[in-house]
Amino acid sequence: MGRFHGRSTTVLKPKTTQEVSEILKWCNERCIGVVPQGGNTGLVGGSVPVDNEVILSLANLNKVRSFDPVSGILVADAGCILQMLTDYVAPHNHIMPIDLGAKGSCQIGGNVATNAGGLRLLRYGSLHGTVLGLEVVLPDGKILDQLTTLRKDNTGYDIKQLFIGAEGTLGVITGVSILTPPAPQASNNVILALPSFDNVLPLYQTVKRQLSEILSAFEFIDRTAYDLAVKHGQGRALSDEDVEGAECFVLVETSGGRREHDEEKLNDLLELLLTADKPLVNTGVMAQSPAQFSSLWALREGVTEAVSKEGKAYKYDISVPLSSFKEVVDNTREHLLSKGLLHDKAVKFVLGYGHVGDGNLHLNIVADSYLPEIEEALEPYIYEVVSSHRGSISAEHGIGAMKTHALPYSKSAISIELMKKIKEVFDPHGIMNPGKVLE
Amino acid sequence: MGRFHGRSTTVLKPKTTQEVSEILKWCNERCIGVVPQGGNTGLVGGSVPVDNEVILSLANLNKVRSFDPVSGILVADAGCILQMLTDYVAPHNHIMPIDLGAKGSCQIGGNVATNAGGLRLLRYGSLHGTVLGLEVVLPDGKILDQLTTLRKDNTGYDIKQLFIGAEGTLGVITGVSILTPPAPQASNNVILALPSFDNVLPLYQTVKRQLSEILSAFEFIDRTAYDLAVKHGQGRALSDEDVEGAECFVLVETSGGRREHDEEKLNDLLELLLTADKPLVNTGVMAQSPAQFSSLWALREGVTEAVSKEGKAYKYDISVPLSSFKEVVDNTREHLLSKGLLHDKAVKFVLGYGHVGDGNLHLNIVADSYLPEIEEALEPYIYEVVSSHRGSISAEHGIGAMKTHALPYSKSAISIELMKKIKEVFDPHGIMNPGKVLE
Repeated sequence: MGRFHGRSTTVLKPKTTQEVSEILKWCNERCIGVVPQGGNTGLVGGSVPVDNEVILSLANLNKVRSFDPVSGILVADAGCILQMLTDYVAPHNHIMPIDLGAKGSCQIGGNVATNAGGLRLLRYGSLHGTVLGLEVVLPDGKILDQLTTLRKDNTGYDIKQLFIGAEGTLGVITGVSILTPPAPQASNNVILALPSFDNVLPLYQTVKRQLSEILSAFEFIDRTAYDLAVKHGQGRALSDEDVEGAECFVLVETSGGRREHDEEKLNDLLELLLTADKPLVNTGVMAQSPAQFSSLWALREGVTEAVSKEGKAYKYDISVPLSSFKEVVDNTREHLLSKGLLHDKAVKFVLGYGHVGDGNLHLNIVADSYLPEIEEALEPYIYEVVSSHRGSISAEHGIGAMKTHALPYSKSAISIELMKKIKEVFDPHGIMNPGKVLE
Repeated sequence: MGRFHGRSTTVLKPKTTQEVSEILKWCNERCIGVVPQGGNTGLVGGSVPVDNEVILSLANLNKVRSFDPVSGILVADAGCILQMLTDYVAPHNHIMPIDLGAKGSCQIGGNVATNAGGLRLLRYGSLHGTVLGLEVVLPDGKILDQLTTLRKDNTGYDIKQLFIGAEGTLGVITGVSILTPPAPQASNNVILALPSFDNVLPLYQTVKRQLSEILSAFEFIDRTAYDLAVKHGQGRALSDEDVEGAECFVLVETSGGRREHDEEKLNDLLELLLTADKPLVNTGVMAQSPAQFSSLWALREGVTEAVSKEGKAYKYDISVPLSSFKEVVDNTREHLLSKGLLHDKAVKFVLGYGHVGDGNLHLNIVADSYLPEIEEALEPYIYEVVSSHRGSISAEHGIGAMKTHALPYSKSAISIELMKKIKEVFDPHGIMNPGKVLE
């Protein structure tokens, strides 16, 4: 995003867990702050120093430690790049349980530290379920070895869970044991144009019922987001006529074990949808080739790029009830209009897209340039809206340095007090990633 | 099991979270121990007082708070019985993500507190993934409200995870928010007789590849366990001829969205297995009716009952690498033989069964009666074996009062030290379920 710039001058690149241990011990004794850094692809400044901390790069801890093709359990150094691991397990017909846009640069340790969500969460669940074990260097240099390859282990508190999503504030993850699912044999997708947002929820229910275990994504794109993606070069899967009168779009993906079965299910779904008395969709297009499959996904994934070409974006990654997706986007637009900020020289677009299955809305406000009055109009406004829905101010991007002040909108005072006590237990000198997560 | 008897004289049955809060506050101020009790179906004495603690029954907190049929998210009081919740979501075509033998008595709060595994873990993952939120009363009476219905929420440390599997030693769970999966439209199963244990792992790989996302159980039963189940009344799915020369058995279950597709996959699998040049199985029988489906499951589930009819059982619920299942059972038998304890008046049978997909072996030693010399021969022997495999001494049953001394076989000194510090943060007066999990 280019919004965060570190001031650190020292980057250390240890090659072993032992070296990480020695660095932390040294820093801890001298109360020197340490910022663990993976692929540095985060969006909330979590891996950027706020002062002159030492940067600890995990890039040289980059070996696969073991892979068991029977159980699908992979054990890897924290610095392994996600794409590299995806490639590593592919010949064994397995896939990583997470996938995200930054896969070419992000590291598995960073994924775990930030509890990355991504495109496969609907199907394979969160890292709290798929991560089986961790090796973590604690701030005092002790090595916490919980790098088991057990799917089930009920022996005391599941401490490793605390490091999942702690954004490097409790210790440095150096190794990850993770369950990789069998690769689906066939994938397909379909894009659907909906006359009204009100149809999204009944559509989601119908799709879940019809596709059952082969449903792997159900992504929502509002009209503004769709038009921007098309404007900036994404192919038109739908004709002008198809798009006319469409208020929003849904991309459905299937992944299953047998192509003919999966296509039959998807065809039956489309037929059911299009021949209904009161159809939930105007039209739908199913990918007929791998190229078209990619091009439908590019529509969804191209929104991010289109937004960045169009101007400067304020991006909010929130969880709210599915039924409120449109209301939140519309109300934000109205709110900016009422502040006189919705015009060519201020906010140009307010748009929403996201993972319906996960209740995760990406709300983007695209402006001509970053302006203090826009920021003031947006915050705490959006956080208050989220809080009123008992939602999350950060569904998958984390807190980092950027949202520490906003934590109380999603977590109670009692929760935050417990977090601070836990931080004190693990990191009494406060050297781990200072200024992140907790103020 | 009848091995644990409490000495408490006071049972409190609060009706609201507020009442739980008042009870804990009162006990905390007076340093009076409290034992939370759900359905009291645990196997390791986790809900039984060790001294004269107050028993806090959750039985009267038994209302469903909300269910959203679109997302499948259920919010319920901790005292709701698992079977009741299963029945509650059934008309909406959803199922609970856990299922276990005790479902008619066990409560969802107890399931979460003990991180219950059960029969659906292979398919739906652990409670660390499916539990979305918790309401917990802390020992000082404060109510920690993390009862969100969000699938994604990356705002700070995921503290609720600590209560999953803490067995009531950190606080009292009063409410649970949980993701319920859509009900499969069709289920089927098949029992396979294997000439050799060595075939189990290649079979597991073949089955996973062929059945992919519809595989919902892969259960292992050794010959001794099978014979005992049959002896004690379970129907013979397989003829004498089928069973001859079989070293072990595997029960495979499928659950999917469309019966004809699923049966086609299962038929193709059987054909592949039986027509191979070097078949992995001697024979296989697929259920042809709901009655036969139940009867195949009864073979697997009947092992427990058969064991209890046959004598007194020492039960170990361990995680070890799949490849070591047989070795662990055989070595235990040899070990008992070498101690002169394998005869009619001491140990009669040593048998193993369990969840291959989860790496979870139930090792049962069936004796004529409980004898100190048997216990001495078994412990720490079995814990040492598990430790040498970096396994878990308690895969799904927990630590309770019974295994606190054995915790170091599965968890390092650093892990246990952190657990103790966390216990101190949450429960400085040590009132919560004293003597459980940590010594």
